[in-house]
Amino acid sequence: MAANDATRQANPWLLRCRRALPLCADLRTLDRHGLIQDLLAGTITAILLIPQALAYALLAGLPPEVGLYASIVPPLVYALLGTSRTLAVGPVAVAAVMVAAALTPYAGGDPDKYLTGAMILSALTGAILLALGLLRLGWLTAFISHPVLSGFTTGAAIFIIGTQLAALSGIAVARDADFFGVLATVARQISHINSITTGFGFAAMALLLFARQPLVRLLTARGVNPQTAAILGRTAPLVVVVAAILAAALLDVHGRSGVAVVGAVPVGLPELRLDFLAQPGWLVLLPSAALIALIAYVESISVAKALAFRRRERIDPDQELRALGVTNIVAACAGAMPVAGGFARSMVNFDAGARTQVAAIITACWVALAALLFTGLLTDLPKAVLAAIIVVAVWQLIDFAGLRHTWRYDRGDGAAQGATLIGVLVFGIELGLLIGVGLALVLFLYRTSRPHIAVVGRIAGTEHFRNIHRHVVETWPGLLLVRVDENLYFANVPKVESELQNLVVDREGLHDLVLIFSGVAYIDASALEMLENFELGLATAGVRLHLAEVKGPVLDRLRNSELLTRLGAERMHLSTEQAVAALAATR
Amino acid sequence: MAANDATRQANPWLLRCRRALPLCADLRTLDRHGLIQDLLAGTITAILLIPQALAYALLAGLPPEVGLYASIVPPLVYALLGTSRTLAVGPVAVAAVMVAAALTPYAGGDPDKYLTGAMILSALTGAILLALGLLRLGWLTAFISHPVLSGFTTGAAIFIIGTQLAALSGIAVARDADFFGVLATVARQISHINSITTGFGFAAMALLLFARQPLVRLLTARGVNPQTAAILGRTAPLVVVVAAILAAALLDVHGRSGVAVVGAVPVGLPELRLDFLAQPGWLVLLPSAALIALIAYVESISVAKALAFRRRERIDPDQELRALGVTNIVAACAGAMPVAGGFARSMVNFDAGARTQVAAIITACWVALAALLFTGLLTDLPKAVLAAIIVVAVWQLIDFAGLRHTWRYDRGDGAAQGATLIGVLVFGIELGLLIGVGLALVLFLYRTSRPHIAVVGRIAGTEHFRNIHRHVVETWPGLLLVRVDENLYFANVPKVESELQNLVVDREGLHDLVLIFSGVAYIDASALEMLENFELGLATAGVRLHLAEVKGPVLDRLRNSELLTRLGAERMHLSTEQAVAALAATR
Repeated sequence: MAANDATRQANPWLLRCRRALPLCADLRTLDRHGLIQDLLAGTITAILLIPQALAYALLAGLPPEVGLYASIVPPLVYALLGTSRTLAVGPVAVAAVMVAAALTPYAGGDPDKYLTGAMILSALTGAILLALGLLRLGWLTAFISHPVLSGFTTGAAIFIIGTQLAALSGIAVARDADFFGVLATVARQISHINSITTGFGFAAMALLLFARQPLVRLLTARGVNPQTAAILGRTAPLVVVVAAILAAALLDVHGRSGVAVVGAVPVGLPELRLDFLAQPGWLVLLPSAALIALIAYVESISVAKALAFRRRERIDPDQELRALGVTNIVAACAGAMPVAGGFARSMVNFDAGARTQVAAIITACWVALAALLFTGLLTDLPKAVLAAIIVVAVWQLIDFAGLRHTWRYDRGDGAAQGATLIGVLVFGIELGLLIGVGLALVLFLYRTSRPHIAVVGRIAGTEHFRNIHRHVVETWPGLLLVRVDENLYFANVPKVESELQNLVVDREGLHDLVLIFSGVAYIDASALEMLENFELGLATAGVRLHLAEVKGPVLDRLRNSELLTRLGAERMHLSTEQAVAALAATR
Repeated sequence: MAANDATRQANPWLLRCRRALPLCADLRTLDRHGLIQDLLAGTITAILLIPQALAYALLAGLPPEVGLYASIVPPLVYALLGTSRTLAVGPVAVAAVMVAAALTPYAGGDPDKYLTGAMILSALTGAILLALGLLRLGWLTAFISHPVLSGFTTGAAIFIIGTQLAALSGIAVARDADFFGVLATVARQISHINSITTGFGFAAMALLLFARQPLVRLLTARGVNPQTAAILGRTAPLVVVVAAILAAALLDVHGRSGVAVVGAVPVGLPELRLDFLAQPGWLVLLPSAALIALIAYVESISVAKALAFRRRERIDPDQELRALGVTNIVAACAGAMPVAGGFARSMVNFDAGARTQVAAIITACWVALAALLFTGLLTDLPKAVLAAIIVVAVWQLIDFAGLRHTWRYDRGDGAAQGATLIGVLVFGIELGLLIGVGLALVLFLYRTSRPHIAVVGRIAGTEHFRNIHRHVVETWPGLLLVRVDENLYFANVPKVESELQNLVVDREGLHDLVLIFSGVAYIDASALEMLENFELGLATAGVRLHLAEVKGPVLDRLRNSELLTRLGAERMHLSTEQAVAALAATR
């Protein structure tokens, strides 16, 4: 501790630099064994990432190389700045569909505008996250509750699967069609289905699903080491892509049967692009960017926290905001779509034994190699195969069990979760999310708007005061003891005011009323005003108001108030017992 | 009590009717003396109301008779349905300016559309209030905090005074000019001021201000009974109007000097009008109507509660919603603008000794008489005199002392109040209000997003557990006691999760962690999920989680959760002392 302090004083700049670049500190703990683990984990993650990167670009409505670019530069930046050692940053499905939702009305069919729009979204998302991190406003992201996030994710996953039906069936669907629009078009034109396209799609899905559990179990049963079996299972997406390319090229399915394929993908690494800066329409995209930033951050931080805690590592939420912010700004300059920490990919990275962000650097190198050498091979890849990869990936995000679980625990939270899910499907991705966030807030206000207020009396022979309706207690004529069990703030002021007034109106001969504030951790200005008016009203009716068991911080703030001036020291009681001793005796 | 029950069984219909029409019950308590008081109070209120009704119609941009109509039929309806005995319902300044803000863009200069728009607003306002009352959703109105309401009222009053500068100076201002637009136009054209108009306006203001305190003090000093003096002071608006009409007619200021006058006002009582039902554009006006409903209700209920409590009478908030709802719907059908309980007018009614809503019926009769007999006289009334009445009336609503007061008590509430005030002036009435409501919510979430979490130990020789940083306490190696002092819900889940995780990461050799929930009144689904994940994480790290002092209602809900299944009975402790006894002994 002392040595640490000495270092801090000796070279504050170095320490600041280390705090800003957590990777430096992590590297000092990395030994040869750890490095090998990072190499292995980074390679396994790359095998999963490359097909997903292509697929999520397709999902966002962008050219496939944009997905690759998002998987090269951004992870390198996050590796330097992030406090999570195992978070795998790159394109994610939910952010990709949010990009599509934002850009379809924005670009109006113009592919160039669509592409620069994606870069503007990345830049705005990054700027919002960076600003929240620098201003320490991370708590704003707490606006989204777990049930709303879960409902949103499930809704988005169903939405994504619905939209992928177009690519899987080879049926053309209007660009701006919503969930039910896509379903209706596909259903109506089911006879026009392209059977070769559908064949590729469903074969890919079957292989991917088989590689999940059945293959691993089969291999393990045949004596293969379970870890090796798991790694082999994870190569499935790449195997499927390679097999599909070979089959499609040999059979020339694009030329002969009109199967939609990826087409020419430019070879090479991402280049610095700043042309999006000159593009108008930033303000129009700001609300969408804010929602993408919210989801990107909340998803990333929850994965990062969960993984870090398993190894007793620390996550700094504010540094995460800044790290993801800079990462997205750099993504924009590299011509990439918005990125976040992916749940499934980070789990794979973690399970494969990644120790530090060196694994992410390895992954990025593999993706860069692929972008340099193999993009030419992608020309013949049927889009239906990428759609299959998307469907299988997002299928895991659907969580109806969670909805049932939440509903059983709490009707309100369950309703918010269900409403978000349905909202996403009926009103679209963005409006659905906003509906959920709004509903969760309203439900919270409803819960705290009716606090528990109990008239209490003393259990004979003790100093315990309990609810007169639940216990046999002593009471005193003309003296009323009332306990309030919630913080007093604007949302419950009307209810508390009505209840207190009704309690008093009922009682003839009342001369002293004691409010017991043992359960009150703060009183806002609305509640203070109510209490002041209540005290004045009581005074004109000849009743004296007292307070008991007021907590320290509450008392500190009340010192600036008229209420305390009017009450004076003799009407503030440390304990209910003392209040009773003073008041039951005087009359 | 028994007799009462017998009645209830004997004639439930009669009782229901009485509950729906509180006036019936009130009338049974009204004796001859009370009736005389109601007669007097109703007459005094009418003297105040008639000029205000004309002025507030002008403020809303409507013909003067609409203000009179709003003062005849709606108070009669409220008298039957309302639970307040002294609330004076009619046109109010803040609702009037909100009507103008909503209708100016809606009507686009078409006076017929403007008029039917006002009736649509009344109908929608009424429908919203009635629906909230029937669905028992009154708690939704708690969204607006006292500081925001106060900031809004002050902002609206300044806004109103600014807009009245046009009428006071005789300078023409664009219909849709905002606050600063009016100020700028008046400042630019100050040389074109109509001095006769300004003379009327300022003379009226001077007389009205003189009649407030100085006149009453003067009369009292000359030996006049203070109550009589106060009543004489309150006749000032009517005296000013009559004097202004006489002066304007004799000097023919309209013809000679171009002073804007009220002009022809149709004679007669309001008629049933349903033509507004066929008008399109209801949906466009819905958001404005929702805001008017919110303000109308919150203003009315706070006045009603304050006055009722002084005489130990009861207000039923849900019945008030229904009463104000029906009142506004009827107002629409009578061709009137939205109405509410006015603060100043209700105070006058109360102070003049009103006992029941019979006073309001008397007031309405006087206004009806005026509408039948005297509207012809209003033709020559300069509009500047009405503007003077508005300015003097809303001047009382400006409350900078309250802003200072709030700021000193609570920086956050003070900021919300100030932001609402400035928001109203800069962004207009509606957006300003929304900004305030949103800001108050965000500030509340911020407050509860960082709850107090304390590591505690035992004060030697007692069973009291206190913060280890504030007290000298016993602790035990490997056992950590943590007290959480706030309800656990989505907004504070991230912070609580981080703090708990950091507490654990710090401690080598930890084997048991006890969370003390004495300050937790509920745990929402987000928090439960966090706790479940936290417990799983602890388990993999070899630490056992315990709960202590869980409140009854919290425990009831947790019974449905995985958390409790995993913890089992042996990790749930009634008291912290019992937890320590069990855990400090076992190791």
